[in-house]
Amino acid sequence: MADSRPIGVFDSGLGGLTVAKALQTLLPNESIVYFGDTARVPYGNKSRELIKEYSLEIADFLMKHNAKMIVVACNTASALALDELQQHCILPVIGVINPGAAEAIKATKNDHIGIIGTVATVSSKAYEKALQGLNVDIKTSSQACPLLVPLAEEGWLEGEVTNSIVKHYLLPLNNNEIDTLILGCTHYPLLKDVIANQVNNDTILIDSAAAVARAVKESLLETNQLYDGDEKGTLMCYVTDIPMRFEDVGQRFLGSPMDHVQTVHDI
Amino acid sequence: MADSRPIGVFDSGLGGLTVAKALQTLLPNESIVYFGDTARVPYGNKSRELIKEYSLEIADFLMKHNAKMIVVACNTASALALDELQQHCILPVIGVINPGAAEAIKATKNDHIGIIGTVATVSSKAYEKALQGLNVDIKTSSQACPLLVPLAEEGWLEGEVTNSIVKHYLLPLNNNEIDTLILGCTHYPLLKDVIANQVNNDTILIDSAAAVARAVKESLLETNQLYDGDEKGTLMCYVTDIPMRFEDVGQRFLGSPMDHVQTVHDI
Repeated sequence: MADSRPIGVFDSGLGGLTVAKALQTLLPNESIVYFGDTARVPYGNKSRELIKEYSLEIADFLMKHNAKMIVVACNTASALALDELQQHCILPVIGVINPGAAEAIKATKNDHIGIIGTVATVSSKAYEKALQGLNVDIKTSSQACPLLVPLAEEGWLEGEVTNSIVKHYLLPLNNNEIDTLILGCTHYPLLKDVIANQVNNDTILIDSAAAVARAVKESLLETNQLYDGDEKGTLMCYVTDIPMRFEDVGQRFLGSPMDHVQTVHDI
Repeated sequence: MADSRPIGVFDSGLGGLTVAKALQTLLPNESIVYFGDTARVPYGNKSRELIKEYSLEIADFLMKHNAKMIVVACNTASALALDELQQHCILPVIGVINPGAAEAIKATKNDHIGIIGTVATVSSKAYEKALQGLNVDIKTSSQACPLLVPLAEEGWLEGEVTNSIVKHYLLPLNNNEIDTLILGCTHYPLLKDVIANQVNNDTILIDSAAAVARAVKESLLETNQLYDGDEKGTLMCYVTDIPMRFEDVGQRFLGSPMDHVQTVHDI
């Protein structure tokens, strides 16, 4: 049976639009309802309790908006609130951690995987737990990179300063001889070229967005909920604030202009 | 008559602790009640409406906590919400813009003043209006520096990367031959040494924190509300979230350890 309801996707801000973009590419006929918590962004330096509270509020919003599934397109919320979300919601909830970890396990040859992310994601050790749940022999090295989110939002996606910052953060991972690096934050795909230039040769970069889109497709196939109509899906975006330079930044993440954006004052 | 009630100070986060520190230095016997909206930081890229709403909520909180005066130790809130705060509050409300502007006017010799701040502060043109209200012949040049707040919070207060970023932002101001530069964000005093190295020779830096402390003292003298007791004042801090590395970051801003910190869940 076809299910024309939208896929619910949320993030602390606009970074999760990289996941929306991956979903549009893999499943062009699915509609998406996207929630960006732009009034409370960033989550990466907030406490576990607050991130859980915000995540549950947003899940309720997406369920009220008729979502058939919830995709947590935020590494911090996936790391800190996925269990609570899965207990709380009557729908399937997919985070970005497990699909990214599974992809990294497939890619590594020397069983040493690096992880970069926000302070909250790295401190949670969520990727380490997911990776070692799949293979106890995996070695991991991780690095919090707090300046990469503001760099991506500022649009400094190349150049000397960005190279120096990325090089600084990657140095310990390169020294540890990882052969696979998980981009553990939805903002980082925008900096993929710089990161690729600064890792050791042949290091494979894992962009969770594409991995999550594949996990969503599998889940919808399993539950027979893929939409089988012919029309192209729509993208409806809700944000808690219209931030400065919203359209510029959003377009950079989505790769196309953002239509249908509404501001929500109380969720 | 002595007034032993505390001075209320607020900021979007911890940056305003540089103002609390300046108040403690100038008025060591005054007590301070500090409110840092760490759950909703940063304000610098949020809309005017949201910043007004948050500022009024915090002013109500400080009034309930017996403040005798409110100091808006946040350039963004001072730029976007000071008028509303002054209409809303029954207490004197002092922002950081006017004292900083007055100090800059006194300092400049060529009547060309530079301003650096967040996107919201710079877009508001609040410093330009304050400066030209004091002297219509003043020329101004301003530059938004979105990466400086995360740099200060990350503690990258020196080194090659920080120098490059600061140099990049200051280049147009140096080319415009300003002779005075307003540090229009409470985070920037932490980067004062780097900024001093990157401006043209003899450019005077205006740190609003000290200017605000002097304006507070004048106002308390005028209304006969200076505390005339002998005991050293206390500092009570309320935050809306205990962020990651809170103590490290707070101590960096305050210059001493933070005692008496409480988290407020609903303001």
